[in-house]
Amino acid sequence: MAEIMKVHGSVLSTAAQRVFACLYEKELEFELIPVNMAAGEHKKEPFLALNPFGQVPAFEHGDLKLFESRAITQHIAHGYADKGTPLVLPGKQMAILSVWMEAEAHQFDPVASKLNWELIFKPMFGIPTDNAAVEENEAKLGKVLDIYESRLAQSKYLGGDIFTLADLHHIPNISYAMRTQVKKLFDSRPHVSAWVADITSRPAWSKVVAMNK
Amino acid sequence: MAEIMKVHGSVLSTAAQRVFACLYEKELEFELIPVNMAAGEHKKEPFLALNPFGQVPAFEHGDLKLFESRAITQHIAHGYADKGTPLVLPGKQMAILSVWMEAEAHQFDPVASKLNWELIFKPMFGIPTDNAAVEENEAKLGKVLDIYESRLAQSKYLGGDIFTLADLHHIPNISYAMRTQVKKLFDSRPHVSAWVADITSRPAWSKVVAMNK
Repeated sequence: MAEIMKVHGSVLSTAAQRVFACLYEKELEFELIPVNMAAGEHKKEPFLALNPFGQVPAFEHGDLKLFESRAITQHIAHGYADKGTPLVLPGKQMAILSVWMEAEAHQFDPVASKLNWELIFKPMFGIPTDNAAVEENEAKLGKVLDIYESRLAQSKYLGGDIFTLADLHHIPNISYAMRTQVKKLFDSRPHVSAWVADITSRPAWSKVVAMNK
Repeated sequence: MAEIMKVHGSVLSTAAQRVFACLYEKELEFELIPVNMAAGEHKKEPFLALNPFGQVPAFEHGDLKLFESRAITQHIAHGYADKGTPLVLPGKQMAILSVWMEAEAHQFDPVASKLNWELIFKPMFGIPTDNAAVEENEAKLGKVLDIYESRLAQSKYLGGDIFTLADLHHIPNISYAMRTQVKKLFDSRPHVSAWVADITSRPAWSKVVAMNK
């Protein structure tokens, strides 16, 4: 297709950042169509025609319209297998990678997103932080990171020996969390800490960070 | 591989049922290794060696060990493409299917699981139902099903014109919900209602239901 890929979203959104990181890893050109979430544009038309659930990002490429960040990244990774970083693996290795993509989605993200909401976004919007929720979710995140520590003692990356979507999907929430008191939970686990340093220093992620400047 | 596939889980678990339904759709033989969740076996060794997060199901096939139900179903659907029901689609159609798999995981499942916990499992365990949580989650589910109603007015199944994993992943939670007051939310939406009748009457699902008898 000759049309450029379009990502509708906000540079502050972790879900949108996941898609930007994937596109940069794949060295694919795209256009950001900003969605003003503070003005509630994601809950109104025309955005709802792109994602009826009213969440960023939405993705358009010619007549292909997608939403849900992890569906978009998987489409890009599989559809542009010969470009940039591989990000996915063949056969049984893909099955292992899928396990850790699901772990990110169901074990890590709910807890890390809640912590970032309390410690980054609520202060940004002038809403008081719920300290009990922070304490509860720090305990949960600690347990998840104990499991990651064991996994990363066995293989350099979550999905296997190379950097894949299973790692990439974590970067936006980790990047926010590292600016908060939650940083200590990553720093105190040596394999997790080395993995965080590795995946957040990738050139593709630096380009996402630069979008915020 | 000559080894039979093993699913470690409980016949009552919606996540395990997702995997059973997938294996029956693919006409693959498997062995159920019961995990006594009432006795907390899923939070202890040897189960934790199969899934460190302590959740059923876990899947074993020779030296391949997987967890997270949706990772297991995707492995089975892609790995046994020539057996039974296709369940996945090629190229861009797969991208659309992935969008609706993600919608199930992030929009439908959290709300439907919470309702089933309050209305099926809490009464089963003699714990009082939280009626405020039921009311809140019924309102949320109604909004999700409004979006499904629009989608299913356009295509017979969520992922496209054929039954796929995007539909299959919904069946266990829908099947429980249809035994509760939540049934009205499905029945009152004609396309959703026809879809529910269709996907819950599949022979593969009948075999999962029969496992409970």
